[in-house]
Amino acid sequence: MHGFSHLYIPGPTNVPEEVRQAMNIPMEDMRAPDFCDFVRPVLEDIKKAFRLRNGRVFIYPSSGTGAWESAISNTLAPGDKVLMARFGQFSLLWADMAERLNLDVDLIEVEWGKGVPVEEYAAKLKADTDHAIKAVFVTHNETATGVTSDVKAVRDALDAASHPALLFVDGVSAIGSIPFEQEDWGVDLAVAGSQKGFMLPAGLGFLGVSDKALAINASNSPKMPRSYFAFDEMIKLNDTGYFPYTPPTQLLRGLRVSLDMMLAEGMEAVWARHAYLAEGVRQAVAQWEGCKLVAAAPEWQSNTVSAIYTPEGVDAKEVISIAYSKYRTSLGSGLNKLAGKAFRIGHLGSLNPVMLCGALSATEMALRDAGAKITPGAGVAAAQEHYRKHA
Amino acid sequence: MHGFSHLYIPGPTNVPEEVRQAMNIPMEDMRAPDFCDFVRPVLEDIKKAFRLRNGRVFIYPSSGTGAWESAISNTLAPGDKVLMARFGQFSLLWADMAERLNLDVDLIEVEWGKGVPVEEYAAKLKADTDHAIKAVFVTHNETATGVTSDVKAVRDALDAASHPALLFVDGVSAIGSIPFEQEDWGVDLAVAGSQKGFMLPAGLGFLGVSDKALAINASNSPKMPRSYFAFDEMIKLNDTGYFPYTPPTQLLRGLRVSLDMMLAEGMEAVWARHAYLAEGVRQAVAQWEGCKLVAAAPEWQSNTVSAIYTPEGVDAKEVISIAYSKYRTSLGSGLNKLAGKAFRIGHLGSLNPVMLCGALSATEMALRDAGAKITPGAGVAAAQEHYRKHA
Amino acid sequence: MHGFSHLYIPGPTNVPEEVRQAMNIPMEDMRAPDFCDFVRPVLEDIKKAFRLRNGRVFIYPSSGTGAWESAISNTLAPGDKVLMARFGQFSLLWADMAERLNLDVDLIEVEWGKGVPVEEYAAKLKADTDHAIKAVFVTHNETATGVTSDVKAVRDALDAASHPALLFVDGVSAIGSIPFEQEDWGVDLAVAGSQKGFMLPAGLGFLGVSDKALAINASNSPKMPRSYFAFDEMIKLNDTGYFPYTPPTQLLRGLRVSLDMMLAEGMEAVWARHAYLAEGVRQAVAQWEGCKLVAAAPEWQSNTVSAIYTPEGVDAKEVISIAYSKYRTSLGSGLNKLAGKAFRIGHLGSLNPVMLCGALSATEMALRDAGAKITPGAGVAAAQEHYRKHA
Amino acid sequence: MHGFSHLYIPGPTNVPEEVRQAMNIPMEDMRAPDFCDFVRPVLEDIKKAFRLRNGRVFIYPSSGTGAWESAISNTLAPGDKVLMARFGQFSLLWADMAERLNLDVDLIEVEWGKGVPVEEYAAKLKADTDHAIKAVFVTHNETATGVTSDVKAVRDALDAASHPALLFVDGVSAIGSIPFEQEDWGVDLAVAGSQKGFMLPAGLGFLGVSDKALAINASNSPKMPRSYFAFDEMIKLNDTGYFPYTPPTQLLRGLRVSLDMMLAEGMEAVWARHAYLAEGVRQAVAQWEGCKLVAAAPEWQSNTVSAIYTPEGVDAKEVISIAYSKYRTSLGSGLNKLAGKAFRIGHLGSLNPVMLCGALSATEMALRDAGAKITPGAGVAAAQEHYRKHA
Repeated sequence: MHGFSHLYIPGPTNVPEEVRQAMNIPMEDMRAPDFCDFVRPVLEDIKKAFRLRNGRVFIYPSSGTGAWESAISNTLAPGDKVLMARFGQFSLLWADMAERLNLDVDLIEVEWGKGVPVEEYAAKLKADTDHAIKAVFVTHNETATGVTSDVKAVRDALDAASHPALLFVDGVSAIGSIPFEQEDWGVDLAVAGSQKGFMLPAGLGFLGVSDKALAINASNSPKMPRSYFAFDEMIKLNDTGYFPYTPPTQLLRGLRVSLDMMLAEGMEAVWARHAYLAEGVRQAVAQWEGCKLVAAAPEWQSNTVSAIYTPEGVDAKEVISIAYSKYRTSLGSGLNKLAGKAFRIGHLGSLNPVMLCGALSATEMALRDAGAKITPGAGVAAAQEHYRKHA
Repeated sequence: MHGFSHLYIPGPTNVPEEVRQAMNIPMEDMRAPDFCDFVRPVLEDIKKAFRLRNGRVFIYPSSGTGAWESAISNTLAPGDKVLMARFGQFSLLWADMAERLNLDVDLIEVEWGKGVPVEEYAAKLKADTDHAIKAVFVTHNETATGVTSDVKAVRDALDAASHPALLFVDGVSAIGSIPFEQEDWGVDLAVAGSQKGFMLPAGLGFLGVSDKALAINASNSPKMPRSYFAFDEMIKLNDTGYFPYTPPTQLLRGLRVSLDMMLAEGMEAVWARHAYLAEGVRQAVAQWEGCKLVAAAPEWQSNTVSAIYTPEGVDAKEVISIAYSKYRTSLGSGLNKLAGKAFRIGHLGSLNPVMLCGALSATEMALRDAGAKITPGAGVAAAQEHYRKHA
Repeated sequence: MHGFSHLYIPGPTNVPEEVRQAMNIPMEDMRAPDFCDFVRPVLEDIKKAFRLRNGRVFIYPSSGTGAWESAISNTLAPGDKVLMARFGQFSLLWADMAERLNLDVDLIEVEWGKGVPVEEYAAKLKADTDHAIKAVFVTHNETATGVTSDVKAVRDALDAASHPALLFVDGVSAIGSIPFEQEDWGVDLAVAGSQKGFMLPAGLGFLGVSDKALAINASNSPKMPRSYFAFDEMIKLNDTGYFPYTPPTQLLRGLRVSLDMMLAEGMEAVWARHAYLAEGVRQAVAQWEGCKLVAAAPEWQSNTVSAIYTPEGVDAKEVISIAYSKYRTSLGSGLNKLAGKAFRIGHLGSLNPVMLCGALSATEMALRDAGAKITPGAGVAAAQEHYRKHA
Repeated sequence: MHGFSHLYIPGPTNVPEEVRQAMNIPMEDMRAPDFCDFVRPVLEDIKKAFRLRNGRVFIYPSSGTGAWESAISNTLAPGDKVLMARFGQFSLLWADMAERLNLDVDLIEVEWGKGVPVEEYAAKLKADTDHAIKAVFVTHNETATGVTSDVKAVRDALDAASHPALLFVDGVSAIGSIPFEQEDWGVDLAVAGSQKGFMLPAGLGFLGVSDKALAINASNSPKMPRSYFAFDEMIKLNDTGYFPYTPPTQLLRGLRVSLDMMLAEGMEAVWARHAYLAEGVRQAVAQWEGCKLVAAAPEWQSNTVSAIYTPEGVDAKEVISIAYSKYRTSLGSGLNKLAGKAFRIGHLGSLNPVMLCGALSATEMALRDAGAKITPGAGVAAAQEHYRKHA
């Protein structure tokens, strides 16, 4: 099929040309005497994207899932009680991992479409006067439902209860795209991945770690068994500007450029850009008769991905399949209990209004082809007007 | 600015990923013993895109303008009388070149928006009983106005008059995109360039030459002085699978892939695709209050580029400027007497409906920003419905 | 500095142009309906490089170190007794990982320069009549010393003792380069990585798993905690042609091409090519007065990397440093107890005689600059004659 | 065949990775409002590589041959008498072009291996008291023989005779590599191409033009017919930061980077680097029994290419063919009367000692395979010692 393909899944996102150029390179010697001069500033600058003044960010050759595991296995012990909430496929998978790693998971089920139940968390933390809860988990942006949770409020709940539990955040589809303040919000373990807001191919897992979590890691006992993701060797080598095993240098060269782009723009501007682009998509969805966001209320709406219920009788799988095969456009699928009921438009990373008008057009055509009675062009028109006026 | 840029000028066109990959190569030895094994099939296959069974296609390191010059300087003599028509910036420039090269140009002025005046041509040819006219020129697709002329009808006029004049065609924005039959239409010299339907960067000029024109070249006297573009050395070397001077191997490797893509699809399918995509753009234009095509009637409408008058009072330059700076979208400008009055949307090469819906959205936003009272989304809606139903 | 840089470390290796082209791509949808049509043949074909007819190869977003961990954590239980030998930095690190993961390591110290002590292994296996030993580990090619061990002989020892222990092989710098027969040698867990014989950037860990190991994994209890590297989810998704988490599609597209190249050449031809190229390097080393291979005898010599002692009084670190800064050439450093005493020339992956003559020239110049009294050109001359005669 | 291919022809040269990255881009709008902001500094900076303070450099989509034609057709009239010398394939071709373009060529035959006969030129200029000679041509570096001529001396001869003739220089394989001072040497027309010292793919012809030549162009009459290469339209558009026809933007983006690299290094340093690298090749040739440079004496030896006679009885074509097919190395062939007798090693552009040691190894192996009785490694050894000591 001719023309470019159109990628509007919530990651991998579209890699900017500058980053693509930077990755078009021959291999290099990851033990060269000057390789550390390249690595050290990368390790320093990625902290700025996490808004971390102290602590560290680890860069693993892995997916974001690997960084989830690193966070758990380096700071918790088998049997530790942790507080989690499940309201989408990714919070579900993280809870599943916690159980596989032998944590004692206090799991709160939440209606899909809402996020972390801050009041329930607060109540449990307040009640936990002997501090049995060792960690509190927050999926900042549930990629499956397009729901953003209030991380800061969970920090406030911990503080209100003077509770020492570690605060874990899955920021995979949040960090680099929507407001996130690891230092100011007291997040101890913050997970991200290369293929979302960082605008790179998949292949790197990032883990922002607070000084508090580093101290716990240095002393924790009994330990969870760990090796590949262990902090100690990574710290030892990172401190010299190298890695304990062969790093994907191609991705690191790309990361250098994507960090340069983000920091030159300014994180606040990056976040504002995501909000501006996301709002256009929501304005479009509002025009589509019978469609609605999975996010149950405006406060839950994500600026990086919108999950959208198809109208009664319209199979979301068919919408996605038509978009892909007839319009060369990849939309995100409805995962787990949303399968067939919802599709997703990823609107994070390197995008602009014309790209999203194209994505919305593909969606409108596919919806109509699949039987939805929406007005052609209505969503695009609403998005256009939003983009024009708020540029 | 973030996201991909959007290129909807009538060339250079969007280079397919396959072609881009093929050009990401180290340099190579253009005199290597096996280089001819690569060159010969390219020289053979490019003829298929020109629909030339006999004759040759020359590949010059030049723009299409260079191939214009090659056509003239290799087959005509200073002072030769030629028949030309001027109805846009490119037919104008070709006539200008003919005069610079000392041809005696019989130039017919035609209203911009129409194409070659076949009846006037026919009359002149019929009247030219002593065959003073040595060549007849046709700008197949006037890129400045979005007007396609009837090449076949000019051939018929020549035949009806039993006139031996050579038939020159500027097919730069036509060949590889809209129906063109060099052999069947008896076109003697057909000019094309890499950066249009061939989906490559600029840098190669193509010239399809009939056996009749080759014979004239071999014997013509008095000659027009020529060297860089001379046929003789090119023929001598091409026959061995090489070139008389260093060819741009990177572009040739890209050409190999673009020819593979075109021929696998089939030229008829390529042409049908262009018609399908162009019609969506025209459907959109029809919805834009106050806008209209420069092409004066449906028979003149080009399937590779649409030139569009802006509504009264709306400066086309402003539309283009806003599209570029605010929406990262390049539209073609109004050239010469169309400056400020019209803009152009290039819809040739490697494109698909979603790309064009994006381009139309950019245009709608820019038109409204520049003061046009069009209905947002109306054009996109019409295009969507066309693309859905005729896929 | 001008000109290309020269990479002769034992991985990452030089990426062929074909693979580099294949990785110069936009991102794609790893859940697209046709993505499985791409993935399934890759999963099937990579088995051919491992020479595995049954079983599976897992592809992890990780370094080879991650695949080490996957092998252990999926088939062994905490406290399991395993037999290992330590004779270089990488066998040392694997033993270290085994201890971190709470295995009971029976570790045999071997002189660096030799490999797995088959007779000691055989004796221990024979004595272990109650089968306390659950796994036997072999570092097939010790990258730090340039020593290749006899995997087949270890299999024979297991068979001779009718011992059911699993056979683990670190094939990171072996598989895809030197003879390796996972099925015929009864290797249960075989570890490889993308950046060596597979001629890709770092970023993928490969793990070949026998049916026997898969069966143990399916039933093992007590389990070692595992999640990211767990077989079960990977099997479930791979069986559908997908992955449980976002795969690095760019590397997979590269892998497709590198597998095509290897399988078109034929694994036996790939191995023969490595032997041919390695022998040229050894012929050169033999000419360098005062230098000698770390490999203690010809039977230990590796065809993928040569570790070379510098002459008395010549600091290997200085040789490496001069090669890098003055000659733009990366040589491998002496690791751990070889630091300062030896350097390494990687000769695996996509190479040819002229590249190695360049590498040997760089080494000769750096050796002389660092004070070695070798005859300039002597090594290169020997390599040239070998390459000429045995091409 | 595996490993990188080795390119040691005198152009196209090896493209640096930085330049290759810069050319890995989507197409762009060559009429965009900010395109001129990119073009103007390129047009200014390329003058620095020509060492031109006044005048202009034109950039044509063509090979260097096109720039030869531009130089002639824009400043001379049909029938003009010009002084040329022929001592290799490229000076031969330029003279051939001059005759095709109807110049009256006073052609001095010189033994191949020597360059421009300054004294004969001086005598003719002195004798030409009525200034019938309109232009004097110098092939600065005859690529076919590896001979460099003394441009400055020709200028001095013109000045000594107070002769107003224009000074034309073919600097295709010189400019950007060996000392060239267009302004200080009073060169009026200086031809170069992208694929030599400028380290780009073929596809751009460069023409440096003095103010004197520009003035002649503005007023010349009778004119030589010209259009594609005409100065006037190019000047008009370049002055606005654009081009009269679609420029190869990909190459221009590459040129931006190659100019940055050259100017950051400094032209004097670029020239010194070429001298240093060339001397190593000559030291090697001196060791090869029976081989000798085509350049007849040291003062003629080129620092960008060495043409080398094979020993009696050794077919140079066979050497080249073996190098290509057996060692993946491209050497330059002997052209015209040197065919079969000599081969060439290109040593210009982006190179370093280790690359050249590889090239020399390939040459030694191919020479021996073809029957030459040279000592293996002897040339490489001599080159190594030169590179080590003079780095």
